[in-house]
Amino acid sequence: MKKRRHGACLGLAILLAMLMTSQAWAEDGYDLWLRYQPITDTEALETYRDAISGVLIESESPTLDIAREEISRGLNGLLGGNVPMLSGAPEDGALIIGTPQGSEMIAELDLEGLDQINDDGFVIHSTSVRGEPATVIAANTDQGVLYGVYHFLRLIQTQQPIDDLALVQSPRIERRVLNHWDNLDRTVERGYAGFSLWEWHKLPDYLNPRYIDYARANASLGINGTVLTNVNADATVLMPRYLDKVKALADLFRPYGIRVYLTARFSAPMEIGGLETADPLDPDVRAWWQSKVDEIYERIPDFGGFLVKANSEGQPGPGDYDRSHAEGANMLADAVAPHDGIIMWRAFVYSPVADDRHKQAYDEFVPLDGDFHDNVLVQVKNGPIDFQPREPFNPLFGAMPSTSLMMEFQITKEYLGQGTHLAYLAPLFKEALDADTYAQGEGSTVAKVIDGSLSGDTLTAIAGVANTGTDRNWTGSHFNQANWYAYGRLAWNHDLSAEAIADEWVRMTYTNDPDFVEPVKAMMMGSREAVVDYMTPLGLHHLMGESHHYGPAPWIADREREDWTNVYYHRATRDGVGFDRTSEGTNAVGQYAPPVQEMFEDVDRTPEKYLLWFHHVPWDHEVSSGRTLWDELVYRYNRGVEYVRDMRDTWASLEGMIDEQRYRDTEAYLEIQEKEAIWWRDASLSYFQTFSGQEIPEEYELPAHTLEYYQSLKFPFAPGI
Amino acid sequence: MKKRRHGACLGLAILLAMLMTSQAWAEDGYDLWLRYQPITDTEALETYRDAISGVLIESESPTLDIAREEISRGLNGLLGGNVPMLSGAPEDGALIIGTPQGSEMIAELDLEGLDQINDDGFVIHSTSVRGEPATVIAANTDQGVLYGVYHFLRLIQTQQPIDDLALVQSPRIERRVLNHWDNLDRTVERGYAGFSLWEWHKLPDYLNPRYIDYARANASLGINGTVLTNVNADATVLMPRYLDKVKALADLFRPYGIRVYLTARFSAPMEIGGLETADPLDPDVRAWWQSKVDEIYERIPDFGGFLVKANSEGQPGPGDYDRSHAEGANMLADAVAPHDGIIMWRAFVYSPVADDRHKQAYDEFVPLDGDFHDNVLVQVKNGPIDFQPREPFNPLFGAMPSTSLMMEFQITKEYLGQGTHLAYLAPLFKEALDADTYAQGEGSTVAKVIDGSLSGDTLTAIAGVANTGTDRNWTGSHFNQANWYAYGRLAWNHDLSAEAIADEWVRMTYTNDPDFVEPVKAMMMGSREAVVDYMTPLGLHHLMGESHHYGPAPWIADREREDWTNVYYHRATRDGVGFDRTSEGTNAVGQYAPPVQEMFEDVDRTPEKYLLWFHHVPWDHEVSSGRTLWDELVYRYNRGVEYVRDMRDTWASLEGMIDEQRYRDTEAYLEIQEKEAIWWRDASLSYFQTFSGQEIPEEYELPAHTLEYYQSLKFPFAPGI
Repeated sequence: MKKRRHGACLGLAILLAMLMTSQAWAEDGYDLWLRYQPITDTEALETYRDAISGVLIESESPTLDIAREEISRGLNGLLGGNVPMLSGAPEDGALIIGTPQGSEMIAELDLEGLDQINDDGFVIHSTSVRGEPATVIAANTDQGVLYGVYHFLRLIQTQQPIDDLALVQSPRIERRVLNHWDNLDRTVERGYAGFSLWEWHKLPDYLNPRYIDYARANASLGINGTVLTNVNADATVLMPRYLDKVKALADLFRPYGIRVYLTARFSAPMEIGGLETADPLDPDVRAWWQSKVDEIYERIPDFGGFLVKANSEGQPGPGDYDRSHAEGANMLADAVAPHDGIIMWRAFVYSPVADDRHKQAYDEFVPLDGDFHDNVLVQVKNGPIDFQPREPFNPLFGAMPSTSLMMEFQITKEYLGQGTHLAYLAPLFKEALDADTYAQGEGSTVAKVIDGSLSGDTLTAIAGVANTGTDRNWTGSHFNQANWYAYGRLAWNHDLSAEAIADEWVRMTYTNDPDFVEPVKAMMMGSREAVVDYMTPLGLHHLMGESHHYGPAPWIADREREDWTNVYYHRATRDGVGFDRTSEGTNAVGQYAPPVQEMFEDVDRTPEKYLLWFHHVPWDHEVSSGRTLWDELVYRYNRGVEYVRDMRDTWASLEGMIDEQRYRDTEAYLEIQEKEAIWWRDASLSYFQTFSGQEIPEEYELPAHTLEYYQSLKFPFAPGI
Repeated sequence: MKKRRHGACLGLAILLAMLMTSQAWAEDGYDLWLRYQPITDTEALETYRDAISGVLIESESPTLDIAREEISRGLNGLLGGNVPMLSGAPEDGALIIGTPQGSEMIAELDLEGLDQINDDGFVIHSTSVRGEPATVIAANTDQGVLYGVYHFLRLIQTQQPIDDLALVQSPRIERRVLNHWDNLDRTVERGYAGFSLWEWHKLPDYLNPRYIDYARANASLGINGTVLTNVNADATVLMPRYLDKVKALADLFRPYGIRVYLTARFSAPMEIGGLETADPLDPDVRAWWQSKVDEIYERIPDFGGFLVKANSEGQPGPGDYDRSHAEGANMLADAVAPHDGIIMWRAFVYSPVADDRHKQAYDEFVPLDGDFHDNVLVQVKNGPIDFQPREPFNPLFGAMPSTSLMMEFQITKEYLGQGTHLAYLAPLFKEALDADTYAQGEGSTVAKVIDGSLSGDTLTAIAGVANTGTDRNWTGSHFNQANWYAYGRLAWNHDLSAEAIADEWVRMTYTNDPDFVEPVKAMMMGSREAVVDYMTPLGLHHLMGESHHYGPAPWIADREREDWTNVYYHRATRDGVGFDRTSEGTNAVGQYAPPVQEMFEDVDRTPEKYLLWFHHVPWDHEVSSGRTLWDELVYRYNRGVEYVRDMRDTWASLEGMIDEQRYRDTEAYLEIQEKEAIWWRDASLSYFQTFSGQEIPEEYELPAHTLEYYQSLKFPFAPGI
């Protein structure tokens, strides 16, 4: 038998073939949008390789070391290796990275924009350094440098030109935060991506390497804060053994620019402090919190502060002692103020009183405007009900000019198809941000309220309820990653368009091939509207299955509280459907500024997407299409199903253009989505038909089952409860 | 700037460098012992490459396709690629794989051993085929072929010679099963590896690719059955929507030789059937089960059958209707019999009656010997209490000659350090298997009871309570994988030694470098004994924290049931410690065959490892070392801690010999293990000292804290409850 003696070349080929057969090319979504796969477009590859001869980072610090590691990893991955770390004098094509304070080379350049940016900002300039063409990524802090590095990598990942850069970027919102509704037993409320990332039992001694990739993913977006625990809080996390675990995470996240926050259970002084009360005005209670806060800051000097849900859905709060939200928030605020901490106090409140749930947060909070201490933000959901597929903007925005308000978005798709449905939420986020409150005339957008520009507020923040979990792909589905990505990008710069963000994400996550990018972007851009169509069109809302919120159940009535039923929200009767929130109904519209109020008051001026949100409308009411309301509902539900079918067709046409595994995963999920869209359509129309008394027009598919069948379905183990 | 124009060779080098920097070489434990990393020992590599020119599998079937895929993946990985699939005539060095029925080439060979093996067996011969030297892997079924393929790969993975093979292998135990104590909400009882692998909510439409790797891992060990649900059962899994989900898993596992089983909630006829009773003699109940079983087999024609926990720890059962275990089991057995199904009926019973828990399973089951129908096995834990670090063998073994008994081992380390402690359990499994029951004279080992050779039984099975979960490394720690591996290997062949299995596992999982293999094997071989030492030496047992079983709590008293306390088991008093199970005590020893009974009756003949299991011994009793009992306990607890310290030192000396991530993971876990071993030692000795009234001898470390401190520790979120 011949002995094989091979030159190095064939040896390399063998090793390469081996690696390729050994699944090195398999993708499973773990790398998110930070894949750094080699650029296959040879022209682009050559351009970048020619432009970048190496990387020069003169300083060291934990954050700069991370930047160094990331730029090296990224460039070597994208450009196929051979991108060395340089030292000493710059060469032609060097990528020079740092701060003026840490690098004389950079200080000398007196770069444009450094004086315009804040501590998180960065500049990227194509320039020349000591006579050599170079690209410079600079900032005033190491943190800004890290953000600049990720931005530069994004340019290459999305195959943007890097030859003539003059970028100056500064985030408009100061605190860009994730809220993890993670419980200490590792279940995740409204989590559809497995379980909690935080391995409390093994902390602080064991740090799962995944924590680092979590930090990288967030740093790449500019997310700089994470609330580790559920707003339905457990005081146990404030106990010393758990604070040691929190500290371990805080220490790991710090060099990535991520500060740690916790949710504070308002009754903690009683539950773990042994006190008899949690009255925020009680001196012992105040002292207990001060001591507890000091205990936290001993371990975590840059602890961000607390997020609090109080007197909402059974959570304890100041109201239990007849104190106001402001009194409760201020007590905590005073405890963290000496340490530069903040309090994020949620405005998601609704009691079982005889007034429209829509109005309650406003009624409870607006009278407190100006009462909150300076280091308090009131955290407001985008809409007045609860993260529905579509809601009008929350009337609190613009109505509390003397209070720092922050936005709470939901990234996890509690009401938009949970783990499996493809629904790109940037259009929802943009719709909320761009909504005009008219609080100070036209152009008083929600975005301007929360970025402080409307009122000159300097304490600004935004929160997103995270969709992360232990699933290998982090978010339950590959396309769910896009929502984490979009949230981060908008938190950094709310002027970005939903489409531009989708474009970035698809290129980074899948491929730059336009034959893939274009159809997938298009698919994504219409996907949220499709969910609105097949779940809750025309302003319908809150029709989901009980508790788990999985699947349709518009028939839910007879619960302990009226506002926990679904019939409360659609109010279907023989004569029509929808919630009259005009001055002839609950007058929820009265909480908006006059131009908005007038628009929502008038059924003919109300944007059709909010029709049944604000009006009770007869089944025969003619809508803009010329169809009756009933026919329009049928049309919309079916349009939603058709959109999903179109997505399946589009996806089928893309087979082979990306890796097999992620292709198949999405293929399977789209099949699930179609089945569930049909289910929503059929169950909802079967039910509403009992009120409209009308047929489903001939051209549409009829429900596959009876209404009784849909009503009988039970899901005792649907995830995320 | 120079443009780089590279030949293919440097291009390959670049690609290779890129892959290497792109983390392709990083290991995270996901690949278990099926890593197929390229052989680095150049001599071994060349030998194998010379011996194997390609693979020839003439037939196709789902199982043979899997075999083809696995051998190709494995050989290309190990040998660096270029191992083609051949077709047509055999070549010199071909690896020929198949059955006589499927391959004329193989049929012609009339291979030795094919007539000796059962359906799962295989032969591997170095021979010549149509004039060419070849290696033949053959079996009588495709399933046997697959097992042969994994065995052959194991030979290469462990760098064994393949030049002169004449292997004939046949597993001795027919059903080699995993029991997953997985709940439908995806929590895992006694699970320390994350959460349940089964994504019920997305089944049957979405099949997580992980299911395939689960199947591969089990097939590689010969594990051919999986019980998907917790013995603390939920009838919901028997409902149609869930049966569809189970079917999806069964269909996926089938070609890997893995049959699916479920746990049957005895009260299901009432809970999901609407019946008023679950009396096994009630005709409606019998009819309900028959119908339910038929429903299952319509979907899953080779459904294995049910595993049942009844009248134990609150589970419903025939005893609720004054029926016997046999009557209950037989009802289910009769329902599955027409479909060739079996029932595995657990003997883990203990009521709150005034008799030693040790005796109750025997007392309840032995009178039923011969009453169980032919397709029933009684599933018996290795020892009579509950998976303690050490137990004597369960007296049921050998005491029911007319009943098929099967072994239940616990792979998950509920009582041996849970997720983090390094404890190799093959010595525990071997100790149980090799125990001599003397039921039919000397040599009547437990192994012979369960493999049917003692009684001529043909229905044989073994079960292991799985340690798998969603953690990336499947089992919570890298070394926990060794216990899944060892269980599988012993289920296949209980004659293998613990050391030989460890040798295989270390080589396959880490490296064949003897400078790593030898010390790690040594470390593993003593690790179980170390846990016995630092938790429950000299026959102590059941001293763990309440409910979660995490950490020491020998002081637990005053519970609803005496046998749910810990004091019940150690019975420490001022005069001594230990449980008198001799004829002067509870006479649990009386349940063993006379030779065994006599040994355990006599404190001087009782092996010291069982001293306090069977005897209440004065603190001053002199043991074989010459020390008093108290001093020996102190010595043993400390010896356990020292062993862990030695493991840390050993591991530290191995840095750099394996991949960084897995090295660091184990390093961190060993640190945790040392802390916890110290905690066990200190808490236990502090407590027992209150009885012994004696000091801890000078040469030992004193407890770091007071007994009150240890008693105050609470772990509300310890995993696995």
